[in-house]
Parts: sequence; structure tokens; C-alpha cells
Amino acid sequence: MRTLKLMLAYDGTAYAGWQVQPGCRTVQGTLEAAIQQVTGQRVRVLASGRTDAGVHALGQVVGWQTQSDLPVEALRRALNAELPDDVAVVEAAEAADDFHATRDAVRKLYRYLIHDGPIRDVFRRQYSWHYTRARLDAEAMHRAAQALLGTHDFRSFQKNDTKRLSSVRTVFDVRVRRGRGEQQDWVTLEIEGDGFLYNMVRAIVGTLVEVGRGVRPENWPAEVLRAADRSAAGPTAPPQGLFLVRVDYGH
Amino acid sequence: MRTLKLMLAYDGTAYAGWQVQPGCRTVQGTLEAAIQQVTGQRVRVLASGRTDAGVHALGQVVGWQTQSDLPVEALRRALNAELPDDVAVVEAAEAADDFHATRDAVRKLYRYLIHDGPIRDVFRRQYSWHYTRARLDAEAMHRAAQALLGTHDFRSFQKNDTKRLSSVRTVFDVRVRRGRGEQQDWVTLEIEGDGFLYNMVRAIVGTLVEVGRGVRPENWPAEVLRAADRSAAGPTAPPQGLFLVRVDYGH
Repeated sequence: MRTLKLMLAYDGTAYAGWQVQPGCRTVQGTLEAAIQQVTGQRVRVLASGRTDAGVHALGQVVGWQTQSDLPVEALRRALNAELPDDVAVVEAAEAADDFHATRDAVRKLYRYLIHDGPIRDVFRRQYSWHYTRARLDAEAMHRAAQALLGTHDFRSFQKNDTKRLSSVRTVFDVRVRRGRGEQQDWVTLEIEGDGFLYNMVRAIVGTLVEVGRGVRPENWPAEVLRAADRSAAGPTAPPQGLFLVRVDYGH
Repeated sequence: MRTLKLMLAYDGTAYAGWQVQPGCRTVQGTLEAAIQQVTGQRVRVLASGRTDAGVHALGQVVGWQTQSDLPVEALRRALNAELPDDVAVVEAAEAADDFHATRDAVRKLYRYLIHDGPIRDVFRRQYSWHYTRARLDAEAMHRAAQALLGTHDFRSFQKNDTKRLSSVRTVFDVRVRRGRGEQQDWVTLEIEGDGFLYNMVRAIVGTLVEVGRGVRPENWPAEVLRAADRSAAGPTAPPQGLFLVRVDYGH
């Protein structure tokens, strides 16, 4: 047996999220089916974390144990030939025997794209939130977001029905920027942390957008955080603007 | 009656091309249905030219005559509310009474995107040709393409079954470039001319790719042109890499 580590990109549009669910097309189920085609083995793979329906990944990390002795590059090519066009194995590598894609992740980077121009972008409609209620003040959003830095109980930004042992997480960095030139109608949020609660990034985006459109003051996200209550936060931003960009491991 | 001019962007993925065909979802049919919803009038619109199934547009130009006296901005917004997400009216303006979107076009710019990196780009798979047979020599393709400049009989690059009065066209400019940095696996062809025959840009791309992968010499496109015979050219590149970028009118 050896443990393999894959880096996966996927367009989440046509998937009911990462995690296998009966009767649903999921990224995990699609990958496991491709692995079975290539290696003949039925396996269960482990990801750095789940992504919701419609959420995308540039660098989801997946681990799995296999008896296959195919070289990793041959395996990558074979999996890509088997996978549908909206999922790709970007990298494949051997990992330590005890590699655990979920537990060992030490840092994740998520990106969220908002388009606030008047005309929808037909080519990026599935990869962004087209926000037309107001022109967003990206600088105010950036300043407001800095209150999230550090270690906090983020339960205000967690989906209500989630049962987790702890809702304490650490945010290392958060940036909100408006593009320039041709990208001037695009606002990008990037957030790095040691982990994120269910719906946390989308709830943060929805909360910052309330600041960006001017209906909440810049210190509001700090208040929402202190309230430790999901009903204090803004609405959850739609899934299609969200990308899991990168997962870092300590080793 | 007044004549209106629309600039349209569309993602051609889900369409059987521009032109209305019975039983098919077409961009023209979709736009005409939206116009009927907004104005109550059944109309036939006229475009600068057809685009094939799967081909995209950033700036298709469409003209139509209407009795509606809605201001153009209100019309644009109403049409965008009515149109599906993969079609957008980017601009709407009044045109001269005798404006003819097809006949009056004096210059068109098409762009074709080729991705020749090893791993497919899941987010741009519907907006590019993923070419994996070889790494393309974009500079050789650029030099070879310069033979197409000027006024020629382009019947070698025309779909066989096309009946046209003339296959003479003028190419004003043609550029092939490889991107840099993060775009280093992307080759872009841009071609400007007074008009293009059916399948002409895709046949040119397919021909230049034969040069780019090294199986044909740089002077081959010039030979193909002189042969005045479609069977002399390379294969037709797939539709999803092609974008109608801009149409210019003399007035």
C-alpha cells in the first residue's frame, strides 16, 4: 500500500458539492469512479475539506491509499483521461504513509469573485457573483475585513445547523481589492486561515458586501464576530463566486 | 419605426449557432423571443454575420427595426432581464434608418484561443481548444500567417458546401502570440478582415497549427492559399476556441 496525494481543479457548476451523497453527482464520487476505472480498486478518498454545491477548486488536495504501483505521472494522465472535462488532476505525488488530507492541512486560501458592473459577463457568470444592487466600496470592505484577523470564535459566520466541536479558527490574512483597467468592475476577496467553518467564507463575503454597499458601517463585521450568533451576520453569498485556491501542509 | 443597433455578447456553448433553425436553440431565436417579450412585436433581427454552433461573441452586432419608443437604455435593461444568463446586450443605440448590420460591416476581429499545456483548464475548457499533441511554435505560426495578409481568394479556407458569390476577402491584420507568465500555455490568434467565409477562421487556425507543431513548413499556408482548394488546408479547429470580438462599421 502507498499513500498518494492529488491536487485537483474542478468547475463545481455541475456538482452537488465535494462529498458523496446518494443520488447526486459529486466531485468525490466522480473521482472515486475514475480511480476505480484506472486501478480496479474501490476506494474512499479524503479531501482537505468539503466544498459546497457550485463551489470551485483550483487546488483541492486529496489523499488516498492504493495498491496500484503505477508511476504517479502515469496515474495522473490515466485519471485525467477518465475524468470528465470539468475535473482535472493537476498534480499527483507520493505522500507519507500517515498523510491525512483533512487533519494535516495547516493553511487554506479561498478566493471569492464579485462582478459589480452593469452588464453580466456571460463567460464568467458561473465563476462569480454578479452584484447589481450597488457599486461596492472595496476599500471599505477591506478595512472592515481586518477585524477578522487572528483567532476568534467564528460561529456568527457558520451555517446554523452545523455541529462542530469548535468554531474557533484563525484567519492569517484577508484582502479585498478592486481590479484595474479591464478588471475595474471586479472585486476579489482572498482569505487565508487554518480552516474554515461550513459556509464561513460565503457568510463573510455577504457581511462585507453590506459594508461595501454602504448600509452597514465599517466596524459592523467586528460586531458580528463578537455577537457569536449567525443571525447577526449578513446573508450568505452565492456559491459560484467561491474558489478553494490552495491548501498548505506542514510537511 | 426606428432602427436599433445592439452589441451582443454570448457564450455559444449551449447554442446551435447564431441563425434560427427549426427545433434548435439559437442565439438569434433567443434574442427574438426576448424582443417579443419586451416589445410585444415579432421581429426578425439581422446580425453582422452568423456564428457557428459553439462559437462565442464578445461584440456581435445586431440591427432591427421596431415600433417601440422605449429609450435605448431601458430597452437594454429589459432585454437583459429577459435573456438567459449566457446572452447579454452590452450596448444599445439608435442607428440610421438604412443601417444594415450585415452589409454595412467593414471590418471584423476574431480571436481564437489555444491551450497547449498538459493539464486541461477546467474553467476555460468551453472557451479554448485544448491542444495536447505538441507544444506549438507560436512564432512560426505568426510568421506563416503573414502570407494571408491582403486581398486573396480564400476558397481553400472555406467549408466545401458553401455557395457564395465570391470567396475573395481582405485580411488587414493577423497575429499569433504566446502568453507570458501564467499565460505561457496559451496561444492566441487574432485576425482582422473585411469579412470571413464560412469556417474560414477555424480552417486558418487548423492550418497554422500544422505549422506550429512542426509537420508543415512556414510557407505552407501560402501554398494552401494558392491552391484554391479546401482539401489543401489543415483540419478545421473546433468551435469553442473562437470569439467574434468586434465588428466595425464605416459610419
